[in-house]
Amino acid sequence: MRVATFSIAGERRVGIVDLDSHSVAPFDIPVEQALSGVLALLRRNGVGMPRTLSPLPLAQVEIEAPIPLPARNIFCVGKNYYEHAHEFARSGFDSSAGSGAIPQHPIIFSKVPESVVATHASVLIDPSVSTAIDYEAELAVIIGKGGRGISKADAYDHVWGYTIVNDVTARDLQGKYSQWLIGKSQDTFCPMGPWAITKDEFDLENASVRCFVNDDLRQNSKISLLIFDIPTIISTLSQGITLKPGDIIATGTPVGVGIGFDPPKYLKAGDLVRVEIDGIGTLENRILERVQ
Amino acid sequence: MRVATFSIAGERRVGIVDLDSHSVAPFDIPVEQALSGVLALLRRNGVGMPRTLSPLPLAQVEIEAPIPLPARNIFCVGKNYYEHAHEFARSGFDSSAGSGAIPQHPIIFSKVPESVVATHASVLIDPSVSTAIDYEAELAVIIGKGGRGISKADAYDHVWGYTIVNDVTARDLQGKYSQWLIGKSQDTFCPMGPWAITKDEFDLENASVRCFVNDDLRQNSKISLLIFDIPTIISTLSQGITLKPGDIIATGTPVGVGIGFDPPKYLKAGDLVRVEIDGIGTLENRILERVQ
Repeated sequence: MRVATFSIAGERRVGIVDLDSHSVAPFDIPVEQALSGVLALLRRNGVGMPRTLSPLPLAQVEIEAPIPLPARNIFCVGKNYYEHAHEFARSGFDSSAGSGAIPQHPIIFSKVPESVVATHASVLIDPSVSTAIDYEAELAVIIGKGGRGISKADAYDHVWGYTIVNDVTARDLQGKYSQWLIGKSQDTFCPMGPWAITKDEFDLENASVRCFVNDDLRQNSKISLLIFDIPTIISTLSQGITLKPGDIIATGTPVGVGIGFDPPKYLKAGDLVRVEIDGIGTLENRILERVQ
Repeated sequence: MRVATFSIAGERRVGIVDLDSHSVAPFDIPVEQALSGVLALLRRNGVGMPRTLSPLPLAQVEIEAPIPLPARNIFCVGKNYYEHAHEFARSGFDSSAGSGAIPQHPIIFSKVPESVVATHASVLIDPSVSTAIDYEAELAVIIGKGGRGISKADAYDHVWGYTIVNDVTARDLQGKYSQWLIGKSQDTFCPMGPWAITKDEFDLENASVRCFVNDDLRQNSKISLLIFDIPTIISTLSQGITLKPGDIIATGTPVGVGIGFDPPKYLKAGDLVRVEIDGIGTLENRILERVQ
């Protein structure tokens, strides 16, 4: 099941996407619940799936991020594909490089909830703040069942589904401030979507993540090549931090980010960044210069 | 004005503390608003202060954290006093030490909102997760007016007030995971309170922060000794991240944390940690071992 958050006539709704008929069938849930997007489903505490209303053509709705405003910062994993870990360590912006290119343990940082934007929303860059903006195509996990001390064996029981995140990064700020929060949390730097997919319908084993900048294929990797797999990430995070329904974990990006090229290929105003994951869909965002 | 969040008869309220009469006068606001604690005042968008009801003896209420569940992760500044920066760089747990003991720019990371606990609540340690738990006494800024691109000159216009935070840290996890989120965000690792004070009543210039562990004075510093002062922190953060009313920024801890001693003085079950800031009050938390 693909679940989208969208708006129609200025009202936010959540519904099931049908790609064959290019439509979305809204859930029959109160408007206040739909405000939290896909979170509305995750918070039903065992109450079954709500019924759906008549489908609407996708062309008539505005797609929003699946969880438009997460209840806390998005967890993100750094340097979680081998070749990307090497390209980043070589870039000079990696404050963690002292301990080696390949991390011995998951590197986990966060992005503020307000950095989230939907597919087709603009990513705003501001040359007075950063001149080294980069893309990072990633699979993101959406937690369905919270918990603490979750074992690797039980980890997938806590996963509700998946979505796509572009972990947009100001490389200069990431290096300058040592801890990555600032470089990762700039306004509009977390495109997410276009919608979420439940875990039962996602082929994690075989899916690839790809990133195109203006139709130039930059990243293309099987997700199964993660250094720290999803059970390891969930088990590590939840050892002492209680995970909550609706938590989002961006799992890391493969080789091919702008900083990996010589000279670096940073994003500039007008660029169109397209992230695809097989079975989920396409997350597409235009880079624009911020008007002060 | 000192503003406390508290509960009485199972209901959360927000009110003005009077230290002379040892009482708290609840604001006359709806119960749903009071759920967010001091945030209820910050979100009134120009509507004046609500009237207060009859004062209640402090002894009859249960003090909660001023903002019991922040709307996003708490911003924290690392290595922001000279002598502490040196003691931490020497400790072997500082993944940022490669770039020198004294940071050239503010180091900003975050703690998850759910790590917040009130004064007198227990800080739970779990030896199976970490064996190197440390205290960090800090002044925390509470943002009143949001904004982006805030200049240093305007920074205090955006400050509503202050509170105390104990930025409890698992040193082993802080080092192991390179980015500090995990070591800083363990459940119960953010004691906050006892209440907040509005900026007009706080003497930032002269106030000191102190930390006692079982009546042993470990930290004692003027807050004015911060390497990066509050305007610099606010200006740095807001350059590309829009600050929101209710954002909390823990400004850093002075020399004297457990890791600074040889051998280190880590916290153990039964310890009582007391953080005092002149003019605000005392934040007191007992360390207990988690019962699985």
